[in-house]
This record gives sequence, structure tokens and C-alpha cells, in this order.
Amino acid sequence: MESLQITSTQNPRIKNLVALQQKSQERRAQGRFVVEGKREILHFLSHYGSEIHELYYCPELCELPFPLSKSGATIEVSRNVYEKIAYRGSTEGIIAICSVKPFGLKDITLKENPLIIVLEGVEKPGNIGAILRSADAAGVDAVIVCDPLTDLYNPNIIRSSIGACFTKQFTACTTDECIDFLKKRGIQILTAQLQDSTPYYDQDMKRGTAIVMGTEDKGLTDIWRKAADAHIRIPMLGKLDSLNVSVSAAILMFEAVRQRNN
Amino acid sequence: MESLQITSTQNPRIKNLVALQQKSQERRAQGRFVVEGKREILHFLSHYGSEIHELYYCPELCELPFPLSKSGATIEVSRNVYEKIAYRGSTEGIIAICSVKPFGLKDITLKENPLIIVLEGVEKPGNIGAILRSADAAGVDAVIVCDPLTDLYNPNIIRSSIGACFTKQFTACTTDECIDFLKKRGIQILTAQLQDSTPYYDQDMKRGTAIVMGTEDKGLTDIWRKAADAHIRIPMLGKLDSLNVSVSAAILMFEAVRQRNN
Repeated sequence: MESLQITSTQNPRIKNLVALQQKSQERRAQGRFVVEGKREILHFLSHYGSEIHELYYCPELCELPFPLSKSGATIEVSRNVYEKIAYRGSTEGIIAICSVKPFGLKDITLKENPLIIVLEGVEKPGNIGAILRSADAAGVDAVIVCDPLTDLYNPNIIRSSIGACFTKQFTACTTDECIDFLKKRGIQILTAQLQDSTPYYDQDMKRGTAIVMGTEDKGLTDIWRKAADAHIRIPMLGKLDSLNVSVSAAILMFEAVRQRNN
Repeated sequence: MESLQITSTQNPRIKNLVALQQKSQERRAQGRFVVEGKREILHFLSHYGSEIHELYYCPELCELPFPLSKSGATIEVSRNVYEKIAYRGSTEGIIAICSVKPFGLKDITLKENPLIIVLEGVEKPGNIGAILRSADAAGVDAVIVCDPLTDLYNPNIIRSSIGACFTKQFTACTTDECIDFLKKRGIQILTAQLQDSTPYYDQDMKRGTAIVMGTEDKGLTDIWRKAADAHIRIPMLGKLDSLNVSVSAAILMFEAVRQRNN
């Protein structure tokens, strides 16, 4: 195990780390991504099936709390270097470069009567991360992003999921591939939409179910509406006309939890 | 109706607007606060019972879309001035200084079997705003913040509620006052807590109900736990141990909606 110290923000490793944080094409080209924060790195180590390539930590801010058997190089950085690489002024003092694990639709394993969340066109990584966090709590089997506008290793997804992106089966594919996947397994497709829909709590969610969410402003494409077994809506009883997409997703997935425990 | 143009960021009105955005003591001293964005200002005008004191807009970015009968001065600002006063790089081009409406516990009116959300110690204005947005959708009667760490006119509350802070009965008080208010009206108190609790969907929420939420890390104080008629929890079925407080609040309030429609 290598051990290094870096005190210059101009160090090529630091420049590479920043490039991996900021650019999806770098993540794709290198097959690596950045995980920041203690909880996130612990979830990565405990639940995700790949390795830490380089672990950066700032001794001024944290002790090394991790079993590092899975790690490559461990690199001490000075406070000024940490501040350059920290996300949104975080002072946790620990950041890792990790290897991507190839994981596609074909790798998903499902229990009987699975619960799946499908996101189409959801553009904010923070919303995708928040949905992953709720999906963890609700025991959802898999979260699938169709035709994503971001890659799945965006730092905002990881951060706002608090590492739930590593505890869930989480992948991206095209809408056609996803519909084919669900239909072949006899999983009912419930699309969340305001028009032509019934209240979500009137829908049986005990059988294998995929809940499909679109964007807050445009909703879902026609392909999904047509592929659906039923259209469901959350009643809007107020003056505003929409809920945050991550809030809507949580309400729907916990209705499935409720039904399955009653 | 006055009409003015401002092109200097050093203008005293602009400095005052920025002070009102940033400082709760300024808001308290002046009895005024700042509302930014078209939807937010429209909700303010349609549902809140006070007046716009000054309306700032940038003609380069927006036309004046509002019926301004309720408004005081209308002030055109140049692009550079707007950029100084805009929140998080917003380009909507419209910001108002509005008057505070005195509104306390005693002003709350309730329908039969009301649904009330109580927040204790929730520190992030963005979470309070998100809860207000969901409370609007769920037809909640009132949102009460106990012993708040922020004032209710924090710009992040207004922004993240998309103006639902103006459509709901929304006030702050001490924990003791709130418990007294609920007990006197025979409203059952349900505290959200992981220990000593039953799944939320096993609890009758058809009668008058207050759902009380604490912070994500510390939960609720003992005063609330003891005042409660029942303790409820959202089952945590995953590897992480908590949900975002605004997501939890939405799940609980929509369970009340579900029960009341079944």
C-alpha cells in the first residue's frame, strides 16, 4: 500500500480528482468516480462491489476510520488541498476515487413481488439522490434511470443519497429496454401522472410493481403512458399544482410498503 | 403609485433589500421581508393578507405580469443591480419587499378534524419550505414551528416552498404554547420517533391530528414525547437509518389524506 503526502493544489493527482468530480466524460473514460464523506465511503465499502483506487484524507480534519484492506494508495493532503477538492465546503476531510462496477439491467436480481422505481428524464442529480435515499428506507429492489441526463456517478447523486446509491441496485438504460425488462418479468407498470389517473392508494401494489416517475414540469412521455398497466396520481388538495418529484416518489413507494404490511 | 429606476448597486434601497434578505433582525425591525420569483409573488398576492411595499423588476428579464393594485412603489432595476439582489443566480427578474402580517396561534382557524404539522427544532429553512409545499398539496390546515431557529420569512423557506408559505396558516410559538393549543382543542398528538413507536399506517388519523416532527439527527424532545397520544414511526427497511425530514413529513401527511378518503 502506497503512502503519499500532497500539499500543492497543482499536483496532477489533485487535478485529476477535480476532473473526475466535474466531468462525466472523465468518469466514463477512466471508469472511476469520486466519493466524499465518511458515511458515503462506509456504505461504498460495505455494500458496493468495487474498490477504492485512491483515498485522500486531511489529518487536520479526520482520522482514518476505515478498514482499508480494499484500498489502493492512501494519500494525506494538507488543509488547502482538501479545501480545493471538498464539495460545498464539507469539512469531513475524506474523499476517495473509486472504480466503477459494471452493472446493467441483466445484472439485477429480484425477489418475489419486487418493487422497482423507474425515473424518466429526472434532471436534477439531487432529486435522484434523494429518491435513492428513500428507496433504501422503503426496501425498494432496484432504481432504474431511463435515458439519463446525467451519469450515475455524479457527485450530487452520491452526496444527496448519503451513499444509498451503493446499497441499492441502481442502473441506467433506455426506455425501451426498461419496458421490455418489466414486461418480460410480469411486473406491473404504474405511471405517476395527473391526467387519466386514479388515486395511488386505490391501486394494488402488493404484486410485483414498477412505479414510474417523470419530471415535475413535463411528466412522462407517451411511451410510458401507453406501456402502463395503470396510471396513478397523488391528489393535489392545495393551491399549488405539484409536489417535488423526490417527495412524490417517497409517498408512492411507502404506500407499497404499507400495503405489503397489511 | 411611484415609479423609479435604479442602476447603481450602491443605492440605499438596494442595500436595504439585501439587508432584509440576509438578516432576520432587519426583517423583525422593519416588519418586512423579501419575496422573489413570479410564482411566489403571485401566491403572495392571491393568498396572503398583506401588501407589497416595493416591487423591483428588471425589464431585460421579465415583463410585469402582476395586477399591482396592492403594490406600493414599482422600481425598474438594471441587469447589474438585479444580479446583486437575485437569489442563487435566479433570472426571473422580479423581487418584492412585502409587509409582515401578524399571525399567531390565536389567529388559526380550523375545520372539523383538522390536520396540523408541527416542527420542532427543524433547522434547515429548505426543509421547512419543502414541508410547506407538501402541506399545501395534502390540504394540511396549519403548519406550526416550535422554538424556531430561523424566522418564518427566511428567503430559503419562501423559495423552497414555492410560495406555499403564503397559502397555508403558518406560524411559530413555543412548545408549551403549541401543546396547550392542541390539547384544548382535543387534537391528538402523534410524534414521529423511532423508539417506542408503531408503524404510522396502524394509527387512526381520521380524527383531528397533529403530526409532530423533530430533527433528523436528534429527533424530538421529551416534552413532546410525553405530550403525545401515540408515537409513530416510518419503518426503515434499508441499510441507512433515516429519511429526510421533509420526505418523512410528506409520507405521514399523505397517510392522513389516504385514510380520510377511504
